[in-house]
Amino acid sequence: MQAVAPAREPGCAWAQLAPGVRIDASDEVRAAHSRGMSYLDLLAWRSVGGMDGGLLPAVDAVAFPASHEQALAVVQGCAREGVVVVPVGGGTSVTGGIDAGAGDDRPVLAVSLAQLDALSHLDTESHIATVQAGMTGPQVEQALDGFTLGHFPQSWERATIGGFIAARSSGQSSGGYGRIEDMLIGATLATPAGTWEVGGYPAASMGPDLRQVVLGSEGTLGVITSAQLRVRPKPSVREYAAAIVPLGSANAGAGSAAETSFTPASDVARALTRSPLRPTVLRVSDADETRALLTMSAPSGIAGSLFNAYVRARRALPGALIIVGWEGNDPGTVAAARAFARSVIGDSGGVWLGSGPGRSWERGRFHGPFLRDELMDAGYLVETFETVVRWSELLTLHATLRDVARQALGDGSYVMAHISHTYETGASIYFTVLAGGWSDPDVAAKRWRAAKQTITEALVKAGGALSHHHGIGRDHAPWLVERIGPIGVQVLEGIRSAVDPSGVMNPTVLRAPR
Amino acid sequence: MQAVAPAREPGCAWAQLAPGVRIDASDEVRAAHSRGMSYLDLLAWRSVGGMDGGLLPAVDAVAFPASHEQALAVVQGCAREGVVVVPVGGGTSVTGGIDAGAGDDRPVLAVSLAQLDALSHLDTESHIATVQAGMTGPQVEQALDGFTLGHFPQSWERATIGGFIAARSSGQSSGGYGRIEDMLIGATLATPAGTWEVGGYPAASMGPDLRQVVLGSEGTLGVITSAQLRVRPKPSVREYAAAIVPLGSANAGAGSAAETSFTPASDVARALTRSPLRPTVLRVSDADETRALLTMSAPSGIAGSLFNAYVRARRALPGALIIVGWEGNDPGTVAAARAFARSVIGDSGGVWLGSGPGRSWERGRFHGPFLRDELMDAGYLVETFETVVRWSELLTLHATLRDVARQALGDGSYVMAHISHTYETGASIYFTVLAGGWSDPDVAAKRWRAAKQTITEALVKAGGALSHHHGIGRDHAPWLVERIGPIGVQVLEGIRSAVDPSGVMNPTVLRAPR
Repeated sequence: MQAVAPAREPGCAWAQLAPGVRIDASDEVRAAHSRGMSYLDLLAWRSVGGMDGGLLPAVDAVAFPASHEQALAVVQGCAREGVVVVPVGGGTSVTGGIDAGAGDDRPVLAVSLAQLDALSHLDTESHIATVQAGMTGPQVEQALDGFTLGHFPQSWERATIGGFIAARSSGQSSGGYGRIEDMLIGATLATPAGTWEVGGYPAASMGPDLRQVVLGSEGTLGVITSAQLRVRPKPSVREYAAAIVPLGSANAGAGSAAETSFTPASDVARALTRSPLRPTVLRVSDADETRALLTMSAPSGIAGSLFNAYVRARRALPGALIIVGWEGNDPGTVAAARAFARSVIGDSGGVWLGSGPGRSWERGRFHGPFLRDELMDAGYLVETFETVVRWSELLTLHATLRDVARQALGDGSYVMAHISHTYETGASIYFTVLAGGWSDPDVAAKRWRAAKQTITEALVKAGGALSHHHGIGRDHAPWLVERIGPIGVQVLEGIRSAVDPSGVMNPTVLRAPR
Repeated sequence: MQAVAPAREPGCAWAQLAPGVRIDASDEVRAAHSRGMSYLDLLAWRSVGGMDGGLLPAVDAVAFPASHEQALAVVQGCAREGVVVVPVGGGTSVTGGIDAGAGDDRPVLAVSLAQLDALSHLDTESHIATVQAGMTGPQVEQALDGFTLGHFPQSWERATIGGFIAARSSGQSSGGYGRIEDMLIGATLATPAGTWEVGGYPAASMGPDLRQVVLGSEGTLGVITSAQLRVRPKPSVREYAAAIVPLGSANAGAGSAAETSFTPASDVARALTRSPLRPTVLRVSDADETRALLTMSAPSGIAGSLFNAYVRARRALPGALIIVGWEGNDPGTVAAARAFARSVIGDSGGVWLGSGPGRSWERGRFHGPFLRDELMDAGYLVETFETVVRWSELLTLHATLRDVARQALGDGSYVMAHISHTYETGASIYFTVLAGGWSDPDVAAKRWRAAKQTITEALVKAGGALSHHHGIGRDHAPWLVERIGPIGVQVLEGIRSAVDPSGVMNPTVLRAPR
């Protein structure tokens, strides 16, 4: 392990901050709770004596509250003693949401949710589960006897309920189950001002919806300790399929570069999304991602020579790969939805590939992050960025960002994208960028910062959101005022001051650097 | 017309407040923009020389901005001059959302949205309409060529888009189209701090969702001047039907009073709501409301001797009336949804009444408010209250509130209810109360205030939300801290201070009286 920056203690000493709560100041535990999984975070682990002056920046200690009351004691103790609080769930933030350096001259205490991992209650009549916020995706699914939350982002295996809420997460089955905000009935937070309970109803008209203030709060308002979530009976029918839709369209008119990389597959996605028979999972790869997936033998690939031969034989390439899935408890409805999808895809000239490639995708759906580690070890830049935009702006935004990213990353870079989540009014696009020769962590960090800036500026200019489901963290914070306006920023600050007047909660996150 | 309280002018005189904007200080216009449509509001019109000392309380003037810029000039002029702003859309608030006395010693300016009534843009590819916030329900539907917003609350004929957003409105077709918050893509507000634009995306992860802070803000954060709304192609298929489900159930065990007033019809509603084939409209009347609807010849009744005979012959009474409707553009999907509903209702022992009574309901769906005026003229108390609760608490809450309301209103009162909006995890219940002998406005107002207090306290104790879609206004504000907690109130105040530091925006609304 790299040498870890020396730890500081608060004036009162850790043992006195919240008596009875386990607080660990060992280097191993500190290092493990000091960063997330952004490209820069992963580089930091690889940087030896380099970018950070030889010492791995780390929080000063880690608290492990075992109850809401303990979490409250920790948060209020920190507010009292001027200790900065950095909540840590699964540690999977890819936007710099965990900042070991958040304290400046104040000590920093990471608050781990690891001990808050129990199902508290399952209301089988209302379909509401009350869970402690430290439960991971798999823990929740295992505990929900006969039910499912249906929330499967790529971080699912490690990320926690509290993290899903704090980051406004969206899972791969969002077409059927919605985003985390569609699932959240209520939440309890430990804040410097005390215990804060929000929501409790499927919907209500009692002023602003304060659940939606907690959703996306990224640890700046308190530690989310428990949540009431909508659950559904586990589906008895689950089907996945794939298709390739050739590029271009007779209706596209004067085909621009934008049009030829997605259409008519993007039209298929839009039509499927707007139907009452919309699929549970829907993902449309652009031409470059389709090519990569079909030629890679990676765990997340949909590879296989037989498959390729089949597609080529039908001259469906170059094309756009569509992954589509349906879940439910009524076989008739699932069959109707599948038949509808098949007919829309057929009308677009697509080639139906059946369930084999769809199942391959499902098996590999959480492998992306692990693949990334391997590629980074081999000196590759591997990074993702994502946004959301209305349908009428999607093709132009996609083409613009693809070109800007290629230019920013230089020769030998590979930029690919897919439509990852769809709505009646728009869709998110998820870009993956690969580039070789990024072995030196310091050089890589500098290059990536420059590229990120160029890409994000282009994204903002093209009208995209700063993020569809990764969040703001520190990495997107410089553009926040441009996107939500000065009044939006004032409102966020007003909310923060109301619950955290001494400013100890995750102070460097969701806030532009000074 | 009753005599109207004398008008005040601000220090700068109205003409100087926002030059170029029409401001009308005539008694007629002031009186017409000084209250909503709550029972107390309607009593005020009827009170002559009584409850308000003989003079009708009124705002001091009414502004009619013709653009966002004019609205901004008005709001900022008021902030500068210490004039209280009361935004007025359709004037249909039933919770005291329009308060002529909001100023205390400061003059009050109502800001009418009446001139902001145009469709600005229709993005037919994204299914997003940009509308000025003063458009009424019918104006929007008429302007949306080939599309529909699908938002039909009972106030639809008069209420405005801005009002829908400010009150977190929910329409009668919410099963299919969702609540106003499901439709809102973005909004523009004129606030004392300047122009505030929120949202712009179907969903995003950019911190708290500030649209959800504007939704339900009830005019306290600024004047909503325009909105981007999700629209859908006008449905080519629209079907309504009705059924009567007998009370009680073999599975109900030891049947309590609660169980026998709704079950198994409430189970039917829950099952329909949780299906992908859920109906667009779903309403379940309790036994008392069913009896009233079947014996009343009112415009909103589902009456007719033939119909009654038909039902009685089948011994389906006492029972619960279910109104169910489907809309869509695919006849096959609508037919499947109807067949599913029919089978669930059949399994519950229900009697299918076909489309006749369903269509009667549809024709009368906006008549309730007009009927109320007629009954009040005849000396009746006619009032409604509504709440939302999870399914597991619904039957108990319904029985409790029914009994409390009957007791509070005394002999001769009639209390009836229906499940008005359903979710996977819960439902709203809408109560209508009728009582004779409430002719004297002053006595009626006192009696109603006492009854409202008793009922609301019982509602809060039983776990219900203060409102599902009517809002907080002044009438529910005394219980707000109990329902959202002191930290929730602090957060609301923090948001208000951020956009309205001088406290001129609707200051008596969404805030407990001092």
